[in-house]
Amino acid sequence: MQPSRQRLPYIFTSMASTVRTKARPTIREFDLIRALHRRHGRRAPSVIQGIGDDAAVITSRAGQWTVLTTDLLTEGVHFDLRTATMSDIGFRAAAANLSDVAAMGGTPQYLLVALAIPRTGTRQHVLQLYRGMMAACRPHRVRLIGGDTSASGDGWFISVTLVGMVPHRKALFRSGARIGDLLYVTGTIGDALAGLRLLNEPPPRARRHPRTGALSARHRQFLIDRHLHPTARVAEGQWLSALHLATSAIDISDGLSGDLRHICEESHVGVDLDLGALPLSPACVAYATSRHLDPVDLALTGGEDYELLFTASARQRPRLERTALERGFSLTRIGKIHPFRFGIQAVSSHGRRHRLPNTSYEHFT
Amino acid sequence: MQPSRQRLPYIFTSMASTVRTKARPTIREFDLIRALHRRHGRRAPSVIQGIGDDAAVITSRAGQWTVLTTDLLTEGVHFDLRTATMSDIGFRAAAANLSDVAAMGGTPQYLLVALAIPRTGTRQHVLQLYRGMMAACRPHRVRLIGGDTSASGDGWFISVTLVGMVPHRKALFRSGARIGDLLYVTGTIGDALAGLRLLNEPPPRARRHPRTGALSARHRQFLIDRHLHPTARVAEGQWLSALHLATSAIDISDGLSGDLRHICEESHVGVDLDLGALPLSPACVAYATSRHLDPVDLALTGGEDYELLFTASARQRPRLERTALERGFSLTRIGKIHPFRFGIQAVSSHGRRHRLPNTSYEHFT
Repeated sequence: MQPSRQRLPYIFTSMASTVRTKARPTIREFDLIRALHRRHGRRAPSVIQGIGDDAAVITSRAGQWTVLTTDLLTEGVHFDLRTATMSDIGFRAAAANLSDVAAMGGTPQYLLVALAIPRTGTRQHVLQLYRGMMAACRPHRVRLIGGDTSASGDGWFISVTLVGMVPHRKALFRSGARIGDLLYVTGTIGDALAGLRLLNEPPPRARRHPRTGALSARHRQFLIDRHLHPTARVAEGQWLSALHLATSAIDISDGLSGDLRHICEESHVGVDLDLGALPLSPACVAYATSRHLDPVDLALTGGEDYELLFTASARQRPRLERTALERGFSLTRIGKIHPFRFGIQAVSSHGRRHRLPNTSYEHFT
Repeated sequence: MQPSRQRLPYIFTSMASTVRTKARPTIREFDLIRALHRRHGRRAPSVIQGIGDDAAVITSRAGQWTVLTTDLLTEGVHFDLRTATMSDIGFRAAAANLSDVAAMGGTPQYLLVALAIPRTGTRQHVLQLYRGMMAACRPHRVRLIGGDTSASGDGWFISVTLVGMVPHRKALFRSGARIGDLLYVTGTIGDALAGLRLLNEPPPRARRHPRTGALSARHRQFLIDRHLHPTARVAEGQWLSALHLATSAIDISDGLSGDLRHICEESHVGVDLDLGALPLSPACVAYATSRHLDPVDLALTGGEDYELLFTASARQRPRLERTALERGFSLTRIGKIHPFRFGIQAVSSHGRRHRLPNTSYEHFT
């Protein structure tokens, strides 16, 4: 009798097809896969075969397009284990991909995770990483359907592939902006960069100076949380797509300045950006003030806010703003689309006009 | 006038959504993406959006399931730049994923590649890597639809995600083997391990001893090529699936011994393996003889042959063997499925029976 094998035939080889290489000896692969499968390998009618075969097999509904995105996060470039937990890192890795699907107007559905584990990595690290990823995925009912693990010579490498669906002809591309369209952004921007900078500051001597740098603990926590646990605007993307409200969309992952440039290049248009209108959180403004920075710079260059930047026909404006209000979506009009030759111009709240610099946030490097 | 931008708006931001991080300064990301897109970003009617947006968008045909697999290859674990070129590594990375889709009976269609580039990596390295990947994909008309690049602190990390299709209810799983089924394998096995070992041997002093180790140059080259440029058995998998010939299937990536165990565990069956019947290439036998090894050991434990191992109902045997012959597929019957309690037994060509050890090839570690 081999009760464990008899009871767990499915789990025994789960992910084994794609988990080719053995992780470091401190991690027993069999245990790890069993634990991951037990925790995250939920079944769904559309998953014909999840973890546990050569490949995953899923059904797609008629009338749907499949949306696919992949991201690779590397230790020391995209994250720093001194300032983030494995769970935080997992959350952000998943959120980045969820956000890409959101920016297409899609519904995220399935996750595949390829992981290289350094010698210092433990089973607990891996479980925490998945816990973070699945925490970001849970509100969207995304299923873990496959992956791969490997040893790494140095540092963690996390490659996440997300699969989603979008109804036929309803995907939002970067290329659809038209002259005269209005430019919008969801939520507030600049927060994640402020949070990252706070994490990389020397720790405040909290007792002696309870409001170090004149930033309240609440604001500090808000900004750090915006960096560590960003929200992918999935519902907002679906709303824009379903009601045909947006002509183009992108998620802000490289900074407003860089991502706006992507829309302009892809749509072959220019833009007039109203810097005075940029949505800034009170925490971001407080941080900028305390550090003698212009919060607009944070908003322009800060990556990884994962808000949606999109364009909409001026005719749609009443419907767009009304339905956003009804659904409780935070939305700000920040500019207008012009011909390509106009370039990317910005007008400050003092009325000063200038060309936007071609800079974007380049992670930690 | 910005002619390059005007002419290349699509290319300008191609892959940029997912190419979040910048590669090392020696590599200009813009140039690299433009080059990759020009070389490999072919359009296809089913690709609504390939490289160049937040995510890729593809259509799926009615009546098809989607097959997804991902693999992560890390330098020093899965490959060694002293014995393989970037092109070889790319070829193998793609072949491993093509083989996973083949083992499901599927048709590979789309490729996403996430890449971490070490400080020593050059643009030329990356282009060679893609050249190798696309060389493996070309016979199957697989399209590159997305990816991500990042800096790596140490060594190359290559994560490949392959998307394929299989008609409804025709996917081949590991779990379908039934008592009385016959066990088959395509091609020859053990070659890739012999090739890997040859690569890791000190270079032969060819002039003085033209047949070093009594292995001809032709055999040596055959084995090394089987390691560096494995063939995914896509046509064979499709044939098994389309004609409903196989009850279960897996590709041999961890070694016959390990992969056979996967089928037995998933199908909850035992197997009687005929070691005398294992298909060995003349080159593999010559290598084993020259090194005083038993080629059967190479065949049992050698991973990455990427042949298909499958079971078929005994009733299907005439049809299976006839249609294989018609199509020119190399096929060998190597055993029979028994009840679970039988375990995994093997009988040698001398008639000696023993339980198969639970070993599989664990790459370079």
